Amino acid sequence: MHKMLSEIRIAGFGGQGVILAAAVIGKAAAIFEGGYATMTQAFGPEARGGSSSAQVILSTEPILYPYVTQPDILVVMSQEAYTRFAPQLKPGGILITEQELVHIDRLPTGIRVYGVPATRLAEELGRKMVLNIVMVGFFGAVTDLLSRDALRQAVADSVPPAFQELNLRAFDRGYTYGSELLTKLENGDLEESMSLESA
Amino acid sequence: MHKMLSEIRIAGFGGQGVILAAAVIGKAAAIFEGGYATMTQAFGPEARGGSSSAQVILSTEPILYPYVTQPDILVVMSQEAYTRFAPQLKPGGILITEQELVHIDRLPTGIRVYGVPATRLAEELGRKMVLNIVMVGFFGAVTDLLSRDALRQAVADSVPPAFQELNLRAFDRGYTYGSELLTKLENGDLEESMSLESA
Repeated sequence: MHKMLSEIRIAGFGGQGVILAAAVIGKAAAIFEGGYATMTQAFGPEARGGSSSAQVILSTEPILYPYVTQPDILVVMSQEAYTRFAPQLKPGGILITEQELVHIDRLPTGIRVYGVPATRLAEELGRKMVLNIVMVGFFGAVTDLLSRDALRQAVADSVPPAFQELNLRAFDRGYTYGSELLTKLENGDLEESMSLESA
Repeated sequence: MHKMLSEIRIAGFGGQGVILAAAVIGKAAAIFEGGYATMTQAFGPEARGGSSSAQVILSTEPILYPYVTQPDILVVMSQEAYTRFAPQLKPGGILITEQELVHIDRLPTGIRVYGVPATRLAEELGRKMVLNIVMVGFFGAVTDLLSRDALRQAVADSVPPAFQELNLRAFDRGYTYGSELLTKLENGDLEESMSLESA
């Protein structure tokens, strides 16, 4: 693991696979990179049926308190999730969006934003349900927090055998999209960058 | 919610849907019964790719420390999970097994055991992958901790729309199986009871 401690929140609609995405990231850190991770969901009376949110902590030490207050990285797959959680992002943090579902209206200073049309990419693979794993692949590429192999193995390990191949393709699609986006941004492709900011 | 505080552990293989099962139970308690719940997975270097385990706490109060040490209820879907976690069950607790995958060799005193052939029931519905939701239905019937409606709604709320109908059928199948088992046990059908103990 590159960092000592990373706090991540993943949020979206129920049914988008938020929890599985969070679990894959936790598993990748812990099993395949020798670190520790926790994944926590808190449900309370204020929760609404339509939304889903999970917290992941990655660490090089055992984790005693698994709640995230200010995430370093926020992954959002719905407008509601963006509105609710974006203000909590740590200064200097990273915001990752499903760019066709999230319109960014304002943003704390110093946040880096990366968007991916995960639902559309998943549909192109034949199954909208793998949008969460497309997001995980994209997360892997743009954060570079965990190795590609570790994440990929965690995906294979977390889904039923009959769905492994599909999910690995989804992961690869998201990862490639993220790598290509980084290359464009490094080459100063401002149009691409701008389209993200105003997605 | 009937009880003040219930600690639950669900464990099995990776790919069996342990996490989703745990999330459904947490969501049912919190959203549809006005309580609080947390769902936590801890990953560490000792974790192995083939196993998966999640902790759920249901409470009538906000939960400050979401780790389970001694579960009141243990749901196991693999022999390894049974061997590892059964010794931690609280005295007077409940053990729920996937009875064709778990052989019970010894058991702490005072534990009630309920077994369900969840994988087979899921296969009869056409999709082995819904065995986790069969387990949730069975859990609902034999523990009577949460209402059937709350659990059912949490299932609908936690899976992609295209899989809702299948998962609701899986839930109903597990719930019915559990209700019928309870009736048999109440009627003193010892053969059924014995077959569970030695499953």
